[in-house]
Amino acid sequence: MSQPPLSRRRLLLGGGATLAGGGLAGAAAGLALSGNDSPAVSQVVEEAKGSENVAFYGVHQPGIEDAAQAHVRFLALDLKPGSDVEHVRRLLRLLTDDAARMMRGEVPLAANDPELPALPSRLTVTFGFGPGLFDAIGRPDDCPDVIRNLPTFATDQLEDRWSGGDLLIQVCSDDAVPLSYALRRLTRDARSLATVRWCQSGFNPARGSEPAGTTHRNLFGQRDGTANPPGATTEFTDTVFSTGPDWLKGGSMLVFRRIRMDLDDWDDLGRPAKEMAMARKMSDGSPVTGGSEQDDPDTAAVDQNGFPIVAQEAHVVQATARVPEERMLRRAFSYDDGPSADGKPDCGLLFAAYQADAAKAFVAVQTRLAEADAMNEWITHIGSATFVVPPGCAEGEFIGQALVG
Amino acid sequence: MSQPPLSRRRLLLGGGATLAGGGLAGAAAGLALSGNDSPAVSQVVEEAKGSENVAFYGVHQPGIEDAAQAHVRFLALDLKPGSDVEHVRRLLRLLTDDAARMMRGEVPLAANDPELPALPSRLTVTFGFGPGLFDAIGRPDDCPDVIRNLPTFATDQLEDRWSGGDLLIQVCSDDAVPLSYALRRLTRDARSLATVRWCQSGFNPARGSEPAGTTHRNLFGQRDGTANPPGATTEFTDTVFSTGPDWLKGGSMLVFRRIRMDLDDWDDLGRPAKEMAMARKMSDGSPVTGGSEQDDPDTAAVDQNGFPIVAQEAHVVQATARVPEERMLRRAFSYDDGPSADGKPDCGLLFAAYQADAAKAFVAVQTRLAEADAMNEWITHIGSATFVVPPGCAEGEFIGQALVG
Ligand code: HEM
Ligand code: HEM
Repeated sequence: MSQPPLSRRRLLLGGGATLAGGGLAGAAAGLALSGNDSPAVSQVVEEAKGSENVAFYGVHQPGIEDAAQAHVRFLALDLKPGSDVEHVRRLLRLLTDDAARMMRGEVPLAANDPELPALPSRLTVTFGFGPGLFDAIGRPDDCPDVIRNLPTFATDQLEDRWSGGDLLIQVCSDDAVPLSYALRRLTRDARSLATVRWCQSGFNPARGSEPAGTTHRNLFGQRDGTANPPGATTEFTDTVFSTGPDWLKGGSMLVFRRIRMDLDDWDDLGRPAKEMAMARKMSDGSPVTGGSEQDDPDTAAVDQNGFPIVAQEAHVVQATARVPEERMLRRAFSYDDGPSADGKPDCGLLFAAYQADAAKAFVAVQTRLAEADAMNEWITHIGSATFVVPPGCAEGEFIGQALVG
Repeated sequence: MSQPPLSRRRLLLGGGATLAGGGLAGAAAGLALSGNDSPAVSQVVEEAKGSENVAFYGVHQPGIEDAAQAHVRFLALDLKPGSDVEHVRRLLRLLTDDAARMMRGEVPLAANDPELPALPSRLTVTFGFGPGLFDAIGRPDDCPDVIRNLPTFATDQLEDRWSGGDLLIQVCSDDAVPLSYALRRLTRDARSLATVRWCQSGFNPARGSEPAGTTHRNLFGQRDGTANPPGATTEFTDTVFSTGPDWLKGGSMLVFRRIRMDLDDWDDLGRPAKEMAMARKMSDGSPVTGGSEQDDPDTAAVDQNGFPIVAQEAHVVQATARVPEERMLRRAFSYDDGPSADGKPDCGLLFAAYQADAAKAFVAVQTRLAEADAMNEWITHIGSATFVVPPGCAEGEFIGQALVG
């Protein structure tokens, strides 16, 4: 056994006063003096955002309508061979309870580390069911065909290690620490019944980097999400949520695609070519034909020589919905898994589209994009997974209860 | 070629008014009404933090004194075989220029995507030189022995894939998007002269989750960093920065360790055992013998039976400096590389200690910890890399110029 310290640190260092310098400076920097004399109303201290939380129970699952957080992990689990409806029920009951507690900022049952989930920072947990789950519970025919057999597209270069899964858990937060905790506890509680198929991490700009409500930028530098249906509107509800069958009412369908971006080539491309491929400007996402970010490009506009300004192959021209059923909510995150040994980037988009019916939305749009999207020169779909997203549930119920029983 | 869209999206969706709902709601939420009638002083709009930047040029390199950001990537490069002083000079000149520009929120020379680095969010880039760099420039004897031959410790289980490197680039930011961009551009500009040895990603709680200046929590849930020397003090300078030789004056030494945490076992441990191992409380980091976070545990305190309250093996008892030269700045980040197939966590600490002389600080402390730290039951050092951190430089110079010439 070694000797006790010869002297205490602060004495040793010759200092009596040990103020937390950073803390005081930080608090001072957060003061916004309004010029009013009364201290009660004259100082607005920088607000700590960690305690903000999202409600778990409700008509819809969380993590869909909520503005995309700064961080995500998509975790795909496979049920262990021989799993039946009893196993699945047990798993979903447990994970539902974990999710509800952690989203409130509490530990899962029996855990004793309240500090880690205490600041959820808008933590959300969203569950999706793959075809294997429908098989395990003995209701294979209830799995929508588009979820079981998503068509392949000519441009696909899908890899198994990023694809498929019986149960998806999408965990999002503005803070990587509570996210890590939540994912770890969920995985731990799942692992007697399921194995990990893949786990993919993504990010968006940090909360607070730009004013709230600003459209995110992806790794190409584009504002990505502009044309999404605005939250809390009937347009949003009609686009995203299913009207039936009963067990799916208020639920959704999720198409997840891992899309690699060729950033080396993109970097070297001139700005006009980048903007031509999207029909939107790099600077602010506004159409190349003028207007503001929320406007559509004017496909009829011509230049002084009478040529169309907007290319037919522009991504948004091909992607935009031609009938209402083609609409979708894109809730995407960037990924960067670090450079390869020779210094090439491994970056892209974790594309996640929620829609009432993926056969009518994602498949229709991706069919056009695979054929004619100018962006195809710089992107490659390398992973794919499709899930039924059950509706939300009330306290005491579990996600998928109407299906799994 | 497919047909043009039959109708424009917004017309199709039957809506004329297309306000960005999120934007307005967000801005409104950011208003803090002070009760004062004049709009000029009564409203404080939530401030966007992305544009905050750190100065690159200076006496010391950035990324040392700056409060640890929310995100880090440590990138270790190896010089290509046959590299000489001319190659190294070229590399450092280029990377210095890139770093200075991107930390200002600008693109590297010749890049045309100003949106991506525009919001650096306290981006910092810090360079460290491994033994191989000293060899390549023909000055092998200038590499301090502790950097070339860090002792091995009985508890080490080091793996090559997380260890070593000729040139370290530590890139930090509060936002993962500018961090990804900076790392990618630096890697790209380095890759004709160097290969990637490893790249490790880490995180701390998000900026703004807790009030500024709050000590971070690590994945064990502990407040980690309490006893660090306070910034902008002579204690900090004496602890971290070298006084010579001339080319190293104002520089530092960095010991990087990848330390795996056994979170399954830690999760299940009772709180008294967790607190005994650290001699600090889980809740707020205060000593188990009472007081506030900034106080030291009282190693002389006894319980009602006369037994010492603080265990000799407690991490802080063993780690605390016994002579001033043992002090260090710990600038650590958590890592979580996602669960293994069987659902086991792959989590830990990217421990990064800056000090004037690693032989006197890290080696002395780690020698004690390897022998007697109670925490050894839940942690394993699995990666190790040591670097000389040259001083900062003035505009027109490059990092390491006094050494590389
Ligand atoms: C890496 C791949 C992709 C990138 C970088 C990308 C980027 C963008 C950008 C910058 C916009 C314009 C701004 C906005 O409205 O969000 C956009 C629009 C859109 N994208 Fe993508 N996208 C990608 C893949 C996809 C895929 C796979 C789909 C669906 C199959 C898709 C569907 C859409 C839709 C529906 C719009 C809105 C069109 C409109 O109505 O104006 N995107 N995308
Ligand atoms: C996963 C591994 C580690 C964990 C979780 C950890 C955690 C902690 C915690 C919670 C504290 C108390 C609060 C504070 O002052 O920061 C602390 C203190 C400290 N640790 Fe560690 N630590 C780890 C590894 C190391 C290593 C490898 C070293 C150096 C060889 C080290 C050196 C120190 C020092 C010098 C202190 C301050 C002691 C004092 O003066 O009070 N730690 N550590």
